[in-house]
Amino acid sequence: MTRTAFFISDGTGITAESLGRSLLAQFENVEIQMLTKPYIDTLAKAQALVAVIDATAVNDGEQPIIIDTIVDQDIRDVIRQATGFKVDIFSTFLKPLEQELNTHSSYSVGRTHSIGSDDVYMDRIHSVHFALDNDDGARTHQYDKADVILVGVSRCGKTPTSLYLALQFGIRAANYPLTEDDHDEDGVLKLPKSLAPHRHKLFGLTIDARRLAAIRNERRPNSRYSSMDQCMQEVEQAESLYRSMHIPYIDTTRFSVEEISTRMIADTGLSRRFSPR
Amino acid sequence: MTRTAFFISDGTGITAESLGRSLLAQFENVEIQMLTKPYIDTLAKAQALVAVIDATAVNDGEQPIIIDTIVDQDIRDVIRQATGFKVDIFSTFLKPLEQELNTHSSYSVGRTHSIGSDDVYMDRIHSVHFALDNDDGARTHQYDKADVILVGVSRCGKTPTSLYLALQFGIRAANYPLTEDDHDEDGVLKLPKSLAPHRHKLFGLTIDARRLAAIRNERRPNSRYSSMDQCMQEVEQAESLYRSMHIPYIDTTRFSVEEISTRMIADTGLSRRFSPR
Repeated sequence: MTRTAFFISDGTGITAESLGRSLLAQFENVEIQMLTKPYIDTLAKAQALVAVIDATAVNDGEQPIIIDTIVDQDIRDVIRQATGFKVDIFSTFLKPLEQELNTHSSYSVGRTHSIGSDDVYMDRIHSVHFALDNDDGARTHQYDKADVILVGVSRCGKTPTSLYLALQFGIRAANYPLTEDDHDEDGVLKLPKSLAPHRHKLFGLTIDARRLAAIRNERRPNSRYSSMDQCMQEVEQAESLYRSMHIPYIDTTRFSVEEISTRMIADTGLSRRFSPR
Repeated sequence: MTRTAFFISDGTGITAESLGRSLLAQFENVEIQMLTKPYIDTLAKAQALVAVIDATAVNDGEQPIIIDTIVDQDIRDVIRQATGFKVDIFSTFLKPLEQELNTHSSYSVGRTHSIGSDDVYMDRIHSVHFALDNDDGARTHQYDKADVILVGVSRCGKTPTSLYLALQFGIRAANYPLTEDDHDEDGVLKLPKSLAPHRHKLFGLTIDARRLAAIRNERRPNSRYSSMDQCMQEVEQAESLYRSMHIPYIDTTRFSVEEISTRMIADTGLSRRFSPR
């Protein structure tokens, strides 16, 4: 037996979906099909959606779960008619908040994910282009403008993390790959020269060698680059560099990009240039 | 008088913050300082945070607002002792959901933002690198592998949108800039040759010329590139190409990257390769 959950919003649906997934993730033994329905911002769209929900109820033989963040009262009234178990975030929490803050709330559509100020937009664009321009050690002369410089072996998660930091928080993150080019004559990894003046900005990523090998194998199967030996050696050298240079670092093996980014911010006290939309 | 809100989580804090900002955005006339406190995953961290919250209450002369998504009961009990107005998402909604689903919920820390399956991780890495490799028309020979090809004039938001689509949804988005290189002998913008075989994958972005000029001015002040004349002409040509070729498009002027991305998905029916973490 499958249940269906609808995450409904008159905006992007990001809040409704994020909350809905968090709540439903606590029910591991129930199979739940999750559908996000953003931009339900007219009565006609709401009525069409009610028809879909009602049909799903018949089909599933169980009422769907409805989690919504719609602020418009008329649209909300239409959705309320759907067959479903309703988790109504706004009406549950806004009333008590109005009392606590001793004021009325303004129900305006899609406020949170609107572009906000021009400053935020520009900061975002700047940060994204900074991450792109300074990806993979492509340039090193802008490191004085970086908020953080991620270091680590190839394919440990530097690029996605830099981009996430830029998009979500406006943090200017460069990233630099640790490779054999930075070995000394004894084959020991040394702090690359271009990074030395910016040691306080460095943040290391490391990863389980087995996982690294799997990731690299997707890219270049059966190569030296993706062999267990090579991966183990690179990871060992990187970690030993972090320790000897007192570079803070985290193991990305079991973490998502969100977790790597937010943990790094929590660990370093790096400040966001804006907040996630 | 300033109020303070704490968004508290034993994971990334993304859900608590997203919901908290959505709720508090409805109170435009109250100045609220918002603080996110992720990874409150030990009793010691929780106790330290309670001290901060209590001090804030004294300082503000008003109790802080506390919005949390902590699942561990012992940590939750500590936070409950803080001076504050509590918006307790999980205890409010999980109990009724347990009844509806007729099962107990598993309170496991940070479930929603955990890395999930290896497949998701690989899809994400692939999509991010696809967006990077196919940014700004750098390559065109991989367009058969693209889920969508964003087109538009320089600085209308193509790159951040491609990256957001990759990171959040695993969508492989290439992007191609419309420039004078693609004008015919009469100075009219034509569909670039490399895009012609992939017309069904094209999605256009457009932007208000005034806003475009402002954005371009940040990059190259007082240039032809950033002049109103040039921006107006480019935008006009791009829009007229979209119309004549029946390329779906949206105006990004007042939209955030989240809005552009989710609207595009809603408009095109493009399917996500995974769901946002």
